[in-house]
Amino acid sequence: MQRVLGVGVIGFGTIGTGVVRLLRSEERKLRERLGAWLRLVRIADIDLERDRGVNVPREILTRDANEIIGAPDVDIVVELIGGYEPARSFVVEALRRGKCVVTANKALLATHGSEIFPAAEKAGVPLGFEASVGGGIPIVRTLRDGLVGDRVRAIYGIVNGTSNYILSEMTRERASFEEVLSRAQAQGLAEADPTYDVDGIDAAHKLCLLIQLAFGRRVPFRDIPVEGIRHVTTVDLQYASELGYAIKLLAIAKLHGTQVEARVAPTMIPQEHVLSDVNGAYNGIVVQGDALGQTFYYGLGAGMMPTATAVLADIVDAARFLLGETKRIPHPLGYPWNQQRQAKLVAPDSVESEFYLRMSLADRPGVLAQVAGILGREKVSIATMVQQGRQQNGWVPVVMRTHRARAGQVRRALQKIVQTKVVRGKPVVLRIEEELGKEAA
Amino acid sequence: MQRVLGVGVIGFGTIGTGVVRLLRSEERKLRERLGAWLRLVRIADIDLERDRGVNVPREILTRDANEIIGAPDVDIVVELIGGYEPARSFVVEALRRGKCVVTANKALLATHGSEIFPAAEKAGVPLGFEASVGGGIPIVRTLRDGLVGDRVRAIYGIVNGTSNYILSEMTRERASFEEVLSRAQAQGLAEADPTYDVDGIDAAHKLCLLIQLAFGRRVPFRDIPVEGIRHVTTVDLQYASELGYAIKLLAIAKLHGTQVEARVAPTMIPQEHVLSDVNGAYNGIVVQGDALGQTFYYGLGAGMMPTATAVLADIVDAARFLLGETKRIPHPLGYPWNQQRQAKLVAPDSVESEFYLRMSLADRPGVLAQVAGILGREKVSIATMVQQGRQQNGWVPVVMRTHRARAGQVRRALQKIVQTKVVRGKPVVLRIEEELGKEAA
Repeated sequence: MQRVLGVGVIGFGTIGTGVVRLLRSEERKLRERLGAWLRLVRIADIDLERDRGVNVPREILTRDANEIIGAPDVDIVVELIGGYEPARSFVVEALRRGKCVVTANKALLATHGSEIFPAAEKAGVPLGFEASVGGGIPIVRTLRDGLVGDRVRAIYGIVNGTSNYILSEMTRERASFEEVLSRAQAQGLAEADPTYDVDGIDAAHKLCLLIQLAFGRRVPFRDIPVEGIRHVTTVDLQYASELGYAIKLLAIAKLHGTQVEARVAPTMIPQEHVLSDVNGAYNGIVVQGDALGQTFYYGLGAGMMPTATAVLADIVDAARFLLGETKRIPHPLGYPWNQQRQAKLVAPDSVESEFYLRMSLADRPGVLAQVAGILGREKVSIATMVQQGRQQNGWVPVVMRTHRARAGQVRRALQKIVQTKVVRGKPVVLRIEEELGKEAA
Repeated sequence: MQRVLGVGVIGFGTIGTGVVRLLRSEERKLRERLGAWLRLVRIADIDLERDRGVNVPREILTRDANEIIGAPDVDIVVELIGGYEPARSFVVEALRRGKCVVTANKALLATHGSEIFPAAEKAGVPLGFEASVGGGIPIVRTLRDGLVGDRVRAIYGIVNGTSNYILSEMTRERASFEEVLSRAQAQGLAEADPTYDVDGIDAAHKLCLLIQLAFGRRVPFRDIPVEGIRHVTTVDLQYASELGYAIKLLAIAKLHGTQVEARVAPTMIPQEHVLSDVNGAYNGIVVQGDALGQTFYYGLGAGMMPTATAVLADIVDAARFLLGETKRIPHPLGYPWNQQRQAKLVAPDSVESEFYLRMSLADRPGVLAQVAGILGREKVSIATMVQQGRQQNGWVPVVMRTHRARAGQVRRALQKIVQTKVVRGKPVVLRIEEELGKEAA
């Protein structure tokens, strides 16, 4: 007599279809490994007509997700509709009814984690979210279990495939953001409304989860400074590569004592570092540990099958729990929720790094000296200054790389420079993560 | 009343010292996570005098490893002496006595796995070997648990830090193998006897384990074709980079139906692939899955703390087993041993890839045509041919890149070319893993 575990999928979109496919193709292997049968008993979606290229018996389809949450033969609820509501209610209710839950919903966990994670603990069932960060990269497992012997000090992640694809293409083809974006949208590589991806919100959601996994601390999502890639120009991408850097939308978190430095922003990283070669739709995450030094994890950040594989891995874990193979209390984050502390965010102004500055200066004697002077008075010292290209009706482009400085000092200096009227338009400021390269060497 | 779990360490060398350090520094964290105390109860080593920079109570030191294996208060035996004997006897006896075993000994597991893995299953205790492959990279866990939902088709690994360091330095400084090796030895980065590292044996041991984890099949270690890096020259490293490749000592395994293609050899990989940026003492492993596509794992391949961290992660797993947190039968490889099949190795001659050829040809009209003709008759078609550099007393260096061809065809063609006497010395042949780049794109 073999045990049967019922799986119910809410959201029959791309990932849902991939999960259904894998449950089929891997059925035998999973039976062997689990000694039980993972049976797809119900799928809920608003659209039951569209052809997904997989045929499922009509009778398991429903428009009402509550049928899944309520069904006695559903042991594992897989939430794949995304967004806040009704996803939140579905997940909370499923947990309340003691169902194991697997989700790919980073937005939900990043903003409602303090409701959902404890709810999972209270229910005493596993809540899997491997698919919510890094697509097919098993980064959640790695931070939760694999690196348990180490202390994580910093995380540098390229965690949004869409924006990374856009930056890669802009670099490769010297094409503008708008140009590449509209092509990506035409190819279905970017959403009609790309806000979450290109404005860094999706990356910030993921960073929120990485911080909780890696540091055992949480920072409110809304407190994380987020900057997108809309304003990155081909000019800066080119200067960057001439200076030996690549510009990536980086999600960064560093632990300073009890405080956490965190942000999402387009950042210059040394070309010799592996992270600089994460191109196209790929994701890459560098974990900096006390004992391990740097480890790096790389893979497709999205797409049907990679994400579905991560979902399936969580389904298998839930099955092992249900089959009594593990009695371990399934803390979603790898530690009891009540051990998690709220962390103060390091004041953005006091964060140190090197900086890339580009501005258009009046082509008059003394102007460079004046600008350098203002920077100097704010203790921002210049590593290299390049006055490149020919002047255009009285203005010349100037590019600078600074030594390590506080963000606040740079900000104040630039304010004063702008006030002097010797600069045209808004200076471009990009952080340089020089540390990354050093620590890798 | 808190439970105490006894840890006994055999081999108080570099890694052993790291493990002792971590057990100290992480003691509180581990107590919190386990709800039990991991207590270091005994350390065995031949040399009890040397100062390791950690002070341990004299009374827990012993010269007799059997004291550890036999001790009733030792629950977890950590084998860190390496080599075949007496490591083999210690591990087998520890398992026979029902102790959990953690080891970093790839040589042992690659050659005596079919004795040791079943012994662990028979004993019903965990056998952890995360530290035996990829140092601090949690690749064993990833293949065993993280990618369970996927089917692995190929593995490309830079898994020997020493040889990778030597190739990186040779490339960076255009220095010869001997030059860099002797410097590495002086700095303690290479063993006095570097055979295992530079001749690819260590990499082959690790490949053996990766194949069993990834494919659920085994190939006898002695059957794997192994080629080291002694004969790699700065000339080839330079041609490689001009052609857009990096030369790495690659451990490769691909699944073809029920057959396995496997080898260790210096290989050209496309510069645009992340694997080409794994430099110095770092390791990097690309896993090619059906669903996931390529995932990539990177970190320090050796050294005290990275390896010790991997050992500690296995100790923690063993502890969780002993504490009854998991009832799951601890199959060391993630599946029952009796499910593992012996795989036939694809005949090396029939393996296809692109090739890099360099030979010194007589500078006479018609010679190139003659060589091209011989290659053509063996169905080896040339993608690019460069007759570079000036001729030296009648001989000119010629570099070729071939299209996809069978190794056997290339071998036969070169035999015939050598017979014609138009070539001086032995032609250089290196495989090009063009596929790697394609699959990443």
